[in-house]
Amino acid sequence: MAAEHPRLLLVADEIRQLRNQWPQSTLFSAAIERARSRIDGLVAGPPEVPLPKDPGGGYTHERHKANGIVVAQAGALYQWTGESAYADLVRQLLLAYAGMYPELDLHPERKEQSPGRLFWQSLNESVFLTYAIQGYDAIHATLDAQDRERIEARLFRPMADFLSVESPQVFDRIHNHGTWATAAVGMTGYVLDDDDLVEMALMGTARDGKAGFLAQLRQLFSPDGYYLEGPYYQRYALMPFVLFAKAIEHNEPEREIFEYRSGIVAKAIRTTVQLSYAGLFFPINDAIRDKGLDTVELDYAIAIAHGVTGDPAFLSLLDDPSNIVLTADGLRLALAREAGHATPFPFASRHFRDGPAGGQGALTILRTGGALGPALVFKATSHGMGHGHFDRLHWMFYDNGAEIVADYGAARFLNVPQKAGGRYLPENKTWAKQTVAHNTLVVDATSQFGGDYRQADRSWPTGHYYHVEDDVQIVSAAERTAYPGTSLHRTMLLLEWPGLDHPFVIDLLKARSAEAHRFDLPLYFAGALIETQPAIDMQASLRPLGEAYGYEHLWRLGEGRGAADDKLAFTWLKDGRFYTYSVIANAEIDVAYVRVGATDPAFNLRPEPGLIIGAENVRNFDIVAVLEPHGEYNGAREYTIRSDSQVARLQRFDDEGKDLVVVKTKDGATLAVALSYDPDPNTAHAIRTAAGEYRWRGYHRVFGDGHYEERSNER
Amino acid sequence: MAAEHPRLLLVADEIRQLRNQWPQSTLFSAAIERARSRIDGLVAGPPEVPLPKDPGGGYTHERHKANGIVVAQAGALYQWTGESAYADLVRQLLLAYAGMYPELDLHPERKEQSPGRLFWQSLNESVFLTYAIQGYDAIHATLDAQDRERIEARLFRPMADFLSVESPQVFDRIHNHGTWATAAVGMTGYVLDDDDLVEMALMGTARDGKAGFLAQLRQLFSPDGYYLEGPYYQRYALMPFVLFAKAIEHNEPEREIFEYRSGIVAKAIRTTVQLSYAGLFFPINDAIRDKGLDTVELDYAIAIAHGVTGDPAFLSLLDDPSNIVLTADGLRLALAREAGHATPFPFASRHFRDGPAGGQGALTILRTGGALGPALVFKATSHGMGHGHFDRLHWMFYDNGAEIVADYGAARFLNVPQKAGGRYLPENKTWAKQTVAHNTLVVDATSQFGGDYRQADRSWPTGHYYHVEDDVQIVSAAERTAYPGTSLHRTMLLLEWPGLDHPFVIDLLKARSAEAHRFDLPLYFAGALIETQPAIDMQASLRPLGEAYGYEHLWRLGEGRGAADDKLAFTWLKDGRFYTYSVIANAEIDVAYVRVGATDPAFNLRPEPGLIIGAENVRNFDIVAVLEPHGEYNGAREYTIRSDSQVARLQRFDDEGKDLVVVKTKDGATLAVALSYDPDPNTAHAIRTAAGEYRWRGYHRVFGDGHYEERSNER
Repeated sequence: MAAEHPRLLLVADEIRQLRNQWPQSTLFSAAIERARSRIDGLVAGPPEVPLPKDPGGGYTHERHKANGIVVAQAGALYQWTGESAYADLVRQLLLAYAGMYPELDLHPERKEQSPGRLFWQSLNESVFLTYAIQGYDAIHATLDAQDRERIEARLFRPMADFLSVESPQVFDRIHNHGTWATAAVGMTGYVLDDDDLVEMALMGTARDGKAGFLAQLRQLFSPDGYYLEGPYYQRYALMPFVLFAKAIEHNEPEREIFEYRSGIVAKAIRTTVQLSYAGLFFPINDAIRDKGLDTVELDYAIAIAHGVTGDPAFLSLLDDPSNIVLTADGLRLALAREAGHATPFPFASRHFRDGPAGGQGALTILRTGGALGPALVFKATSHGMGHGHFDRLHWMFYDNGAEIVADYGAARFLNVPQKAGGRYLPENKTWAKQTVAHNTLVVDATSQFGGDYRQADRSWPTGHYYHVEDDVQIVSAAERTAYPGTSLHRTMLLLEWPGLDHPFVIDLLKARSAEAHRFDLPLYFAGALIETQPAIDMQASLRPLGEAYGYEHLWRLGEGRGAADDKLAFTWLKDGRFYTYSVIANAEIDVAYVRVGATDPAFNLRPEPGLIIGAENVRNFDIVAVLEPHGEYNGAREYTIRSDSQVARLQRFDDEGKDLVVVKTKDGATLAVALSYDPDPNTAHAIRTAAGEYRWRGYHRVFGDGHYEERSNER
Repeated sequence: MAAEHPRLLLVADEIRQLRNQWPQSTLFSAAIERARSRIDGLVAGPPEVPLPKDPGGGYTHERHKANGIVVAQAGALYQWTGESAYADLVRQLLLAYAGMYPELDLHPERKEQSPGRLFWQSLNESVFLTYAIQGYDAIHATLDAQDRERIEARLFRPMADFLSVESPQVFDRIHNHGTWATAAVGMTGYVLDDDDLVEMALMGTARDGKAGFLAQLRQLFSPDGYYLEGPYYQRYALMPFVLFAKAIEHNEPEREIFEYRSGIVAKAIRTTVQLSYAGLFFPINDAIRDKGLDTVELDYAIAIAHGVTGDPAFLSLLDDPSNIVLTADGLRLALAREAGHATPFPFASRHFRDGPAGGQGALTILRTGGALGPALVFKATSHGMGHGHFDRLHWMFYDNGAEIVADYGAARFLNVPQKAGGRYLPENKTWAKQTVAHNTLVVDATSQFGGDYRQADRSWPTGHYYHVEDDVQIVSAAERTAYPGTSLHRTMLLLEWPGLDHPFVIDLLKARSAEAHRFDLPLYFAGALIETQPAIDMQASLRPLGEAYGYEHLWRLGEGRGAADDKLAFTWLKDGRFYTYSVIANAEIDVAYVRVGATDPAFNLRPEPGLIIGAENVRNFDIVAVLEPHGEYNGAREYTIRSDSQVARLQRFDDEGKDLVVVKTKDGATLAVALSYDPDPNTAHAIRTAAGEYRWRGYHRVFGDGHYEERSNER
């Protein structure tokens, strides 16, 4: 192990080399100044270390949280500036904690499953230790033997023991709370020269490798670096992984932790970045919509990923001093950025398999045009435990820098005391998790798996197909367990075609059942509704759409009807661009124009608009849609162009399970998508229509006329 | 007159001096490139000059509009680049128009009041001429005598005659349509060396100065540069004023047009800029909310204002090549900006008197903290003719870069064909103009003046008081005619005070009547409602709030009640900051939580939220409110601070028409505002309360305790 302190994220050797360089970086200097003023803001007077009393959000909770951060940041400031006042501050705080900690019982407001001592839950205690041990490490050399003995014996050892051997139900769990615990304990082991603590952190309390950090690295991320709870929790889960991995690299480089599982740590970081649009994470599952690349977790992750890979694309993701971490990686990132080495991050299409072996569904992103171009997100992952939503085969669409087809995210005002103490609101369960809150098919006005997540955790969508080639991108998957007796299959394409202004989406959704059902397909769009076909009759008074499974939260603003095979079309305007959603179905359709917000006694919900395309008493329901971005509205310059859809006709043909979708534009151009659903590239398929026979090999083929180059996965 | 061409906005001498300089400016070079590609976009093949057929938005209308711009821009490009292709393009277009124009009858889709020939209304024809004459001027030297004769005799002379002597009802009108006509005709006079046309443009068809450009300059703007229809139309009206003024300056500098009426042209431009927040105009009256400093009118106005005044604050307002006009002023602005001379525009408190002599009410802006700090807008202007809203004593509030208390603006999707052809929507009259759509008192659920604008145009609010001094800013006005038998008086203060986080608003509104009435005070807030006192009972089904005067467009989402003198409080969250509106009234209060959008068959309305504080059967209604910005919500960094209001108590005392408002904070600080409503600074006033006697001189005084410096207008 490293002989000198510090030895975690900061290491003595690097600091010596870099201490004179940081003033050359404007960004890093600003980050240092920001840390100074942050500490000044958090420590107004003498250190406050109150007896634990309040739950999350309360005074003692927030004070201890802030103290943990102060210890780490003041330690880093001491290392970079050499100013002894910061070392003194850390020493005072740690001695105060050492004075109190051994006497603490479990927290008076403890959570039942995983109580803490300083905090109501042990998770917060792990986070505190992760920070505090870094601060101690940073000032270790300034302390005399007596202080070290006191701080280690009365604070760090008992806290590490409390979080490991005394809380094995958390420590040995393959879960992000477990990762925080193993990271905190392992980092403490390095600082206290305690091989045994480190070994336990890596291998679990039984030292058999079935639990602990390495098992977590193997099991919590898929081989593509996807975290089963989705991007919002992926960000949070990432933090202890990257911190502890960096500490392992510094102390035991022979473990080659960044090579572990084909470099899963850096891969998970890249995946997290890909799971964002315009800086914000795709808000699937329980997600706060404000979260994105501008979070402390990504600050550390990106700096460390840049340090590990040297990839200059990471440099382009951070540009504010508040995002520069006070480590050698942070400084090197700032210097490289300031030297002009940043390249754009390569946002691109990705198929992220879910599950430890990659066999539990996938989240697919189809993109073209880089960071702010179109992005289609198709969710066919595993459920993701208690924070998962019942949204299999759900999709979202982004374009022109904005959200166009939206996911509601979580119903929660994070940390706002007046809103249920900042916790998940009741409407998170009754609305946000329910199937009808998503852009996927609802059967019989209930939610997938009846809304039972334990049941949902046992299966995942199957039959995935993903193919990306120039101007044709396709993803497809089936879901057979969410609604017993009904199977669902959805295929989505992102296409570029001279017949239409911009890349556009084709969606083919098929439901098959032996019994007749009510089907509802919601589309939550962002923007102002401009025109609809059929006309929507507005209601003179509003009632909720239903009574359960989220329907009770939708006001029915208006309704319309359409015949089977008739093209319906809905145009809205968002940020200066028009979007038309054209739909045909094989049954008579009723359309509800809805707004979120009914049955909401504490006005917790956002009034988002949506359309619900429904059909009653149908066994096999087939729906084909095109989402077409078009034209431009410029209010400042007073012009509008192409506010009308170019889609003139939409048709679907099927033949023994094969499908053909034909799109005709007003200019007379025709595009056809043929689907066999057979991944074998050598099998030949055909569908005959009045216009002729379409023949292809393999799963799919896109046919164009005249000015369209034919493409398929046939080679 | 200037001997050489060009001689309007571009003049030959300046071009010669500057032609070699423009490549040094990145901004101007980019503007040149942008103009090139714009012309390439507008002129795909040979010039198209179709026979007039379509109304606004239709093909021939848009084609002729575009051709006018192409003529002007190609002319400017020819002047700056010397490329003869641009001169040829202008020549071809003008000859094509000369071939057609004399044969044209009135437009087949003509508007009754002011028909055009190329366009359905003569306004468009004036705008066309304003552009086209600039292009002709720019290429004049390249044409032979025969072309000149043909273009002048068959296009410019007949068009100028058509817009002046043949349409005196528009030309001689003191109205923005008249200004477009006089500007177009006057500029044509300069280019055609026709003194008589110029004289008529300046003095009206009767040459007596009762009409024409100078009369318009005297009568359309107030002495403070405020235009009676409000900022949205002020922007539009400004364009012909600044273009023609610049042409006059170049051709007849002895007129000292920029000195006219104490420099009203530059003053009107400064006022227009002050009437904006975060780049967008305050959307009072019929206003499209997208409009702001980023409009072609302001591009010209700002460049010309910078040219006239040399004020470097104008440089900071434009930073995009698309906003740089291709004139000498545009180039000098770009060069000065690139030389680093820009200073921030001094956004500050202003009291803009309305009416030609300044005696018809006023629009007041109270600001502190510059461009993105708090701004309170108080509207007590004249009505503003057909585009005015029935909103006397209405207010809006901006803070932290965002709209906090909002004006709906107009109900219109400008130029979107599907939305009533892009014209004002029916809901503009039934909702947007009505009193209940604004943050001012509604009496008996009707609109001011019964919604009759001719009646409203005859009077204006009176008794204005405006005083700005460091941390106390106050505005006050009365309205006695909008609701017969009821007089209204409203006083608003923007205060800075150590007792509260941020500058905050105090609002005292008094209604006096001999009869009992229903009173409603709406507050349209931007953001998510966080907490209310009293509790709002959400409705299980929704009905409109009423049947007429805009009430039919409000869904009643919920309701609550409060006793007289009880403090009500409503907290919302907008862009990371909390806002609490605390209210007391002298009567029992009912509160409706509403959302715009009822009775809206074509879903034209935006679903904005509002609160309506109402009282039934009251003769004298007094309401006092505090709007307090506080705390911070940061979702990315996961913290929330001071989400609770600091206002503990709100009291009002009155004594023989004098008022005292007392605000107490939870920290125990007290602030009191005393109002005598007597502008004489020497008269002494007093109000006695249980806490002691407050004594002051003059209209108002603000009393603080301990840590607040007392201030008033007493000196």
